Amino acid sequence: MHRLLLSLIFVFFTASNAISNENDPKPNITEFTLENGLRLVVIPDRRAPVVTHMAWYKVGSADDPQGSSGIAHFFEHLMFKGTSTYKDGEFSSAVSAIGGQENAFTSWDYTAYYQKVSPLALADMMKFEADRMRNLVLTEELFLPERDVILEERSGRVDRSPSAILSEFSRAALHVNHPYAIPIIGWEHEIAKLKMVDAIAFYEKWYQPWNAIIVVAGDVDPQETLKLAKATYGKIIATTKPSEREWTSSPSSVVAQTLEYKDERVTQPSWQRAFRAPSYSIAQEGEAEALDLLSTIMGGSATSRFQKEIVLEQELATAAGAFYQGSSRDMSSFGFYAVPRGDTKLEDVAKAVEAQVDKLLKDGVTQEELDRARQVYLKTIIFSQDSQITLARIFGSVLTIGGSVDDFTSWPDRLRKVTVEDINKVARKYLDRNRSITSRLLPKEG
Amino acid sequence: MHRLLLSLIFVFFTASNAISNENDPKPNITEFTLENGLRLVVIPDRRAPVVTHMAWYKVGSADDPQGSSGIAHFFEHLMFKGTSTYKDGEFSSAVSAIGGQENAFTSWDYTAYYQKVSPLALADMMKFEADRMRNLVLTEELFLPERDVILEERSGRVDRSPSAILSEFSRAALHVNHPYAIPIIGWEHEIAKLKMVDAIAFYEKWYQPWNAIIVVAGDVDPQETLKLAKATYGKIIATTKPSEREWTSSPSSVVAQTLEYKDERVTQPSWQRAFRAPSYSIAQEGEAEALDLLSTIMGGSATSRFQKEIVLEQELATAAGAFYQGSSRDMSSFGFYAVPRGDTKLEDVAKAVEAQVDKLLKDGVTQEELDRARQVYLKTIIFSQDSQITLARIFGSVLTIGGSVDDFTSWPDRLRKVTVEDINKVARKYLDRNRSITSRLLPKEG
Repeated sequence: MHRLLLSLIFVFFTASNAISNENDPKPNITEFTLENGLRLVVIPDRRAPVVTHMAWYKVGSADDPQGSSGIAHFFEHLMFKGTSTYKDGEFSSAVSAIGGQENAFTSWDYTAYYQKVSPLALADMMKFEADRMRNLVLTEELFLPERDVILEERSGRVDRSPSAILSEFSRAALHVNHPYAIPIIGWEHEIAKLKMVDAIAFYEKWYQPWNAIIVVAGDVDPQETLKLAKATYGKIIATTKPSEREWTSSPSSVVAQTLEYKDERVTQPSWQRAFRAPSYSIAQEGEAEALDLLSTIMGGSATSRFQKEIVLEQELATAAGAFYQGSSRDMSSFGFYAVPRGDTKLEDVAKAVEAQVDKLLKDGVTQEELDRARQVYLKTIIFSQDSQITLARIFGSVLTIGGSVDDFTSWPDRLRKVTVEDINKVARKYLDRNRSITSRLLPKEG
Repeated sequence: MHRLLLSLIFVFFTASNAISNENDPKPNITEFTLENGLRLVVIPDRRAPVVTHMAWYKVGSADDPQGSSGIAHFFEHLMFKGTSTYKDGEFSSAVSAIGGQENAFTSWDYTAYYQKVSPLALADMMKFEADRMRNLVLTEELFLPERDVILEERSGRVDRSPSAILSEFSRAALHVNHPYAIPIIGWEHEIAKLKMVDAIAFYEKWYQPWNAIIVVAGDVDPQETLKLAKATYGKIIATTKPSEREWTSSPSSVVAQTLEYKDERVTQPSWQRAFRAPSYSIAQEGEAEALDLLSTIMGGSATSRFQKEIVLEQELATAAGAFYQGSSRDMSSFGFYAVPRGDTKLEDVAKAVEAQVDKLLKDGVTQEELDRARQVYLKTIIFSQDSQITLARIFGSVLTIGGSVDDFTSWPDRLRKVTVEDINKVARKYLDRNRSITSRLLPKEG
């Protein structure tokens, strides 16, 4: 998903350049920083008379205070409540009254809120969004019932999903001693004792103009947008000084771990192996690009090694693939997964994947595979649906994890530079089975 | 070890009662609390003209601030440095000048310092110990070189020991999201960036009279000891108010995990399986006693099931046993281990252990086994070496984890109450393989 998001930017650049200006290799993205530290990014997208307005905060579940997991995500709920200016639900009503869409999402790295509306409504959206950045009214009367709503949400998303249960513990094993081990929604027993004072402290610390990036993508003029932003966000006075995000890190060594979860509700067993791998943000030059292409070669397309060998040739799996989640602020993961076909044993499909990985580590990839993967990688992107929301998400996530617009305009060039040696090098560097986290999801017998 | 420590108290009571007063079922232990909150416990032990003086602090590695693991243990080093009253090493010189012994130890739950000396030196020991509780002089000149000493200590204890490496990660898996996941000595990368300000803050927060328990065991008079304590410890003015120990807890669910560590240096493979189990401090009535006896029945003696079946009968292991570490302030562990004999595969010895556990869960234990285990349990204790230091340690650990002297005088009675049903119940409640953490230590091939 993230790989796709990131790569979409390239397509967008290519497409818009092809249409607007063959000679200008840079997209027409404008960045501003207001006096209170708030950043504004305006991305032209004139395909339709709509605008997507997103407020990104450089705070996520990895910033949940120790023992208070779930507090970052809690704001996905609280931010839709009343402020000292507007009643509970007034913002949402305004959005739906004009046929707009709105939503919010939380990751370990960030929290974001957005509306997709007519450009005529942008000023209003900014007014509402700027208001709830600082004027949220938090009371026990709304906090406690919302905590129950979140517990119910967790129950539905995690506790009723065997794969989600397993995934929480696999993640904790991969990111031992790192806040990426925290489930975004929070551990149940910690959500249950979150207090309103925790929310107030968190809001006060992080919901500040210096911690926000406003992304506006759509049929708008940058200078006009800046004017609107100044009139709304520009008036916010930060009540605290910028806080450092302080994250613990994992020990560099790690011991191979296999997690096995059996549950009566499992109808489809599955297998996964993950390795710690550097994200776009922290990778050494060329490594992230190589990991992306390696993932494509091994399991990212219809012509990948896993697809050809394990799914089609050996008929052991109904699905087998690779993943690399490069888009994160700190250490990320690279991995493989497989879903056994029919009565195939999980162990047998795991062995087939392992054999492919052993072959990769021994013989490496070929130039032909690399060339094809590069093409496939781009084709996948071209055929994928891009949307204005996706576009705004790309920039928001890139900028909140510490990247720049320039980092991404150079992406196609960086992909082109990847060699067979680069790929073999990252494979041998990161795919060490003795440092991997394997997850086995199985039905519970009897 | 801890089981032994705890049980020793029973022997001591029995022995001393038998000699001193047949009619008094309680040992002559005296407890005092000084005005500044410091507690004093005096344990009579007149077997020899020696006294063991211990200062216990209710702070340990589980209180290491997030990202600063190793700071509690760091004090084992710093407390032997100079104070505003005495030069670096002056206390230690005073102890060795009179032929005394001294040392310190840190656990997740506590940190303690002790001297074993002539009763004539007790006043002096208290003077020094009270002084370093508040007057330690911390400078960069002593902090930074000591950090290197600790990194070297860690390297020797953990990084050069494959089993210790594996054990750190097994512990982290068992105690996910709990500070018991922290290695006592600290994670290497976190020790490396500990700062003097961290130490100062930690010292200021926890090294206070209200957080200390002074245990004096030996040939001393309680009232006289109290007088000495008042003249030394009693003069300390706490500079902060009592702090709550705030620990996060593990999610109640857990997914079965197997950790495998292969290392060229492993000459003897080994296998272990641990389950979360309540400690003496948090167990429901009777559960801790039942777990202790279950551990004895399964693998705690020469006549245990593992010893008879796996070591002697099947000849699969050179050692196979059970463990229960009841002595901790929060959630603890129960488990099994085995060391394969000769060329026996780790998998085969693991299967043999599993078969014994399956049999236990299916058929339970017998009354005869329980009776024998109770006897064995007591015999083991009687034949074990008790020492004054051990005695003082028992009380120090019991009191710092929240227990009382009375909790322990009732221990033999509580053991006597355990029934076959109690044991079968805790076995079925806690020994769930789907929630276990298995560790496999193997030599690295080639």
